[in-house]
Amino acid sequence: KSSLQVLFFPDKDVACRDYFISGDGCFKSNCQFSHSKTSLSELCKHMMSSQRSLDVCVFVITCRDLADILLKLHRRGVKIRIITDKGMLHTDGSQIWTLQKEGIAVRTNNSSFFMHHKFAIKDQQVLINGSFNWTRQAITGNQENVLITDDLAVTSQFMAEFQKLWEHFDTS
Amino acid sequence: KSSLQVLFFPDKDVACRDYFISGDGCFKSNCQFSHSKTSLSELCKHMMSSQRSLDVCVFVITCRDLADILLKLHRRGVKIRIITDKGMLHTDGSQIWTLQKEGIAVRTNNSSFFMHHKFAIKDQQVLINGSFNWTRQAITGNQENVLITDDLAVTSQFMAEFQKLWEHFDTS
Ligand SMILES: [Zn+2]
Ligand SMILES: [Zn+2]
Repeated sequence: KSSLQVLFFPDKDVACRDYFISGDGCFKSNCQFSHSKTSLSELCKHMMSSQRSLDVCVFVITCRDLADILLKLHRRGVKIRIITDKGMLHTDGSQIWTLQKEGIAVRTNNSSFFMHHKFAIKDQQVLINGSFNWTRQAITGNQENVLITDDLAVTSQFMAEFQKLWEHFDTS
Repeated sequence: KSSLQVLFFPDKDVACRDYFISGDGCFKSNCQFSHSKTSLSELCKHMMSSQRSLDVCVFVITCRDLADILLKLHRRGVKIRIITDKGMLHTDGSQIWTLQKEGIAVRTNNSSFFMHHKFAIKDQQVLINGSFNWTRQAITGNQENVLITDDLAVTSQFMAEFQKLWEHFDTS
């Protein structure tokens, strides 16, 4: 009864932003990007279908496309919470500052170890988890996996982990 | 009907090598290490129960305890195959050279991108997958997760991915 999907990277083709992400459609007659399903386009589809909440717990976020989806959801009223690695805030192209400036709640670890998870939970129901950091290199270069499941026996444990870390990393 | 388990790191206590890994038991009267279950001890238990094969596809292996389990299994006749990241072969404390010298088959990517997976498949039945690299820091320092499942719908896709990469990275 539980549905699941496994995505592997790298994608051979780069998903078209306009076609899969902007939601306005792509009207370029000679678009260089893919209008066919890719692992990225599937991942985006899952994220964009969030109705109420998206809890993100990812080591590093530098990919503009994925950050833009978080902003889009946030503006639509979906509650976004982000836990990420403190050290990686300062990596080239980190999108965290922009997300935070737009009002998305962000918390980080405060140790010299890594907050190394790479998962997200949609609407407290669907787990997105794997080796995949939210970077451009992970999409088009690296060997990576993402497992998406709505098996409550799994998702509930990751929800509890998220909540534990969220409270633990509260510095207010 | 499918069984699954989720492990989170870091472990508060370090699992006792003798008690959980050597298999000879621990006879120290004041052992400093944990004889209670930890995430590492559970992971070791799964690995050590391999009967026929263990396919390992992990970015980096520097943890002696986990490398020792691979050696132990190899000597017991379990077929071990390792795919790892070429660049990480040269990281401090890499265990790959030792494993290879003992006769375990190792293949690596040959690009500047990362072979970034962190999964293993036991006896073509059980998938071990998550954010967890096989390093000491991942056990006692980082926030990490490992999901263990025997759901064939998931495992079969990772088996196919392993086989694809194994053939792709064949340089012989
Ligand atoms: Zn297009
Ligand atoms: Zn002991």
